Amino acid sequence: MGIGTGNPDHVTLEGRRALQEASVVLLPQKGSDKADLAELRLAILRACGASARVVPFEMPVRDESLPYETRVARWHDAIAARWQAALATGPVAGPVALLVWGDPGLYDSTLRIAERLQPRPRLRVVPGVTALQALTAAHAIPFNSVNGAVTVTTGRRLRAGGWPEGAETVVVLLDGSCSFEALAPEGVTIWWGAYLGMSEQVLAAGPLAEAGPRIKELREEARARHGWIMDIYLMRRA
Amino acid sequence: MGIGTGNPDHVTLEGRRALQEASVVLLPQKGSDKADLAELRLAILRACGASARVVPFEMPVRDESLPYETRVARWHDAIAARWQAALATGPVAGPVALLVWGDPGLYDSTLRIAERLQPRPRLRVVPGVTALQALTAAHAIPFNSVNGAVTVTTGRRLRAGGWPEGAETVVVLLDGSCSFEALAPEGVTIWWGAYLGMSEQVLAAGPLAEAGPRIKELREEARARHGWIMDIYLMRRA
Repeated sequence: MGIGTGNPDHVTLEGRRALQEASVVLLPQKGSDKADLAELRLAILRACGASARVVPFEMPVRDESLPYETRVARWHDAIAARWQAALATGPVAGPVALLVWGDPGLYDSTLRIAERLQPRPRLRVVPGVTALQALTAAHAIPFNSVNGAVTVTTGRRLRAGGWPEGAETVVVLLDGSCSFEALAPEGVTIWWGAYLGMSEQVLAAGPLAEAGPRIKELREEARARHGWIMDIYLMRRA
Repeated sequence: MGIGTGNPDHVTLEGRRALQEASVVLLPQKGSDKADLAELRLAILRACGASARVVPFEMPVRDESLPYETRVARWHDAIAARWQAALATGPVAGPVALLVWGDPGLYDSTLRIAERLQPRPRLRVVPGVTALQALTAAHAIPFNSVNGAVTVTTGRRLRAGGWPEGAETVVVLLDGSCSFEALAPEGVTIWWGAYLGMSEQVLAAGPLAEAGPRIKELREEARARHGWIMDIYLMRRA
């Protein structure tokens, strides 16, 4: 289920009820640098009045020597195996819940991993507020221009392909390396946000030529301070 | 504020609190055929324990003789004037709320209309679950393919421009006329939903060649029965 972008108040009433009905919650452990995120998940469970048994599982490590697609597929296989092993450690009397940042459909692997389980579970997806909405809400801007198209893409693809053909607006997720630097900045405005919805939230916006270097600096400084970062940005061309 | 796609349970905890804090709610009246939507807004207000004064305003009619951009701009001017007139009819002691289907950023004009108000109000945007998430949740499918780009666009643009360059996935909103018919259906799968999150929800999916005509029929039948329709679809190319 989608839990929004880190603000416990982003949970929907449907989400809260689903957490209350869950008998087990699978909780990923990603290593000590992201410990605050596991803490945040537990805080959300408490805030929602969940009484589920919390079953932690270690996230496997990706084999960086493999080509991208294979690496991701093997990693999903490994996570599915960890889920099954974790669930085998105790009784499961009712629904098993997974808490997903934002929404389970948006640049998240939970659905693809769940399809690997044997026997195939009956899936219920609870939609959540995504980083797209948290970003545009924080800046109080529209997602799209009037009758305009929006391309949602990754940093990897932006670096490889440049500004997507035909898009007035581009939203970039999963960008570990300020891929906006690969674009010609003329006429482009950027709205950036990190740790959206959390107390650590940082925002910056402006013409790309001027705001780009500032965002790069803010990003590096924030990542060094917290040990991790989750960010997203939207760009529009005049 | 975004209220999700018609299911009162899509409201977030933040949204519920914002409704409780509002002193006035502006409620659009779009004519008798959409009366159930005004009713649904009132039901959401009641379910959230809102005590705000509800101030209705008549939605102005678009001048279809004008070119598209001018028509939309004039219409937004006219709506802003109606808001100001409606608010002038009584005291406004605290926040004024507008309930937006889905999220205020996504193919919605509320932010653009609010910018026209004099004096300029202090805007607070409460993000909501959008039809994008409601659609992918209802079908239990991911929004994007692995490292894939998604183009979010309108029926008008799909008809004019065909399948957007470089996109594995296309999501179409505001399509009054089954614009997927303009595409070559080979290798395209479609997931469609109408009245998402409501008791009237209808879903259909499959290869475009086979599902397209079926969706067209379902859509016409449902629109005739309810007098209105809100739908959205996602297509992926193999």
